[in-house]
Amino acid sequence: MDRSDPTAELGVTDRTRLRRSPERGSRARSDLYDILDAGFVCHLGVATDEGPKVFPTVFGRDGDRLYLHGSVASRSLRAARDDAPMCVTVTHVDGVVLARSVFAHSMNYRSAMVFGTPRTLVEREEKRTAMRIISDHIAPGQWGYAREPSDEELAVTTVLVLDLDEASVKIRRGPPGDGQGPDADRAVWAGEIPLRTVRLEPVPDPAMRTPVEIPPHIARRGPAAGVPPGYELD
Amino acid sequence: MDRSDPTAELGVTDRTRLRRSPERGSRARSDLYDILDAGFVCHLGVATDEGPKVFPTVFGRDGDRLYLHGSVASRSLRAARDDAPMCVTVTHVDGVVLARSVFAHSMNYRSAMVFGTPRTLVEREEKRTAMRIISDHIAPGQWGYAREPSDEELAVTTVLVLDLDEASVKIRRGPPGDGQGPDADRAVWAGEIPLRTVRLEPVPDPAMRTPVEIPPHIARRGPAAGVPPGYELD
Repeated sequence: MDRSDPTAELGVTDRTRLRRSPERGSRARSDLYDILDAGFVCHLGVATDEGPKVFPTVFGRDGDRLYLHGSVASRSLRAARDDAPMCVTVTHVDGVVLARSVFAHSMNYRSAMVFGTPRTLVEREEKRTAMRIISDHIAPGQWGYAREPSDEELAVTTVLVLDLDEASVKIRRGPPGDGQGPDADRAVWAGEIPLRTVRLEPVPDPAMRTPVEIPPHIARRGPAAGVPPGYELD
Repeated sequence: MDRSDPTAELGVTDRTRLRRSPERGSRARSDLYDILDAGFVCHLGVATDEGPKVFPTVFGRDGDRLYLHGSVASRSLRAARDDAPMCVTVTHVDGVVLARSVFAHSMNYRSAMVFGTPRTLVEREEKRTAMRIISDHIAPGQWGYAREPSDEELAVTTVLVLDLDEASVKIRRGPPGDGQGPDADRAVWAGEIPLRTVRLEPVPDPAMRTPVEIPPHIARRGPAAGVPPGYELD
């Protein structure tokens, strides 16, 4: 499905040039895709007459296109100019980095900032395809299992598409940075507290009238490496 | 420490009035504080000449004030007008809500959007206090254990303070909304896949030259209810 080569490099623009901690930057399109694919909630920033607004919303990716569920932001999007640039940021917090000095404390994270001017989808089949991409991204297997959107439902859903042309990626991994500096000899424990998002056991809706067997695509998948039984990395 | 009554209600402004899903809104200041205190990474939105930008950054709260580590955004903050309004959004994704129709799929989440014009801290002791609040929020016990910031380190750190005057809170919990509607009789499993952030075992920095016993404030705390030993809700 990828129409864009994941081995390609991202270009550098004024918006994506990293001034701070450039060593954490990545120009690899594959890193951008990995970060986007590892999450399904982004923060969509839009400038309005009332000032900037940052909305959490769900998204999906198809090749070099990002599809955003924009209903929660739709009023602000209408208020913004039609050609209003936006910023979409996806962040995964991987750990708290404990250093020998407070100043050297940090976070381990993977973050992508995507810049561009999204287009609001109007055509019904294009919206249906976009909804399927978002659905497959958040809850694989639900499209085709749950009832598909009706035309009326598509009509009241705002979906945006944003080309993945301009993006910056930052990744920090590993121990704190003061292990070789003047604070290295301090008798202070240093290292990382890793954080992970896990899914718990599915909780059935008490409103289910007749017992429905949980389908394999919803049932808990096997535990991921390093994660106790019953848990998996998300 | 709270200078603002957590039992008070948040006011309604044009920016905080919820047009979509108003039933998910909360005006309780205690809900705002709970959402802020449950996380330590926010998404800071600022309007620049290059368009909106959304930066992930860490924060802490003291009463009705939010302290933001703004170094990652400092260049954009300087480029923005001094009195530039901003939006700070904190989102916790609590679960994927699987419904009988794709359209009724949703997320369980707790989200706060804070609006205002932050002030950049200049005075050294004020910056030190703010850094302590942020440090205590992310890594309780590290202030006083790790070396405190020097004047030089404080000088190169950008810290913003934002009054918690104008904010909107949205919370969604529970099963999908289509359990009583026309789709209720479909033989489709419906419910929620809960998501949680857990901390894993601390990973020591291999650069530690002499063995340092892990202090109690870093050592894994006891497992939270419902979470297997070795894990806790964050």
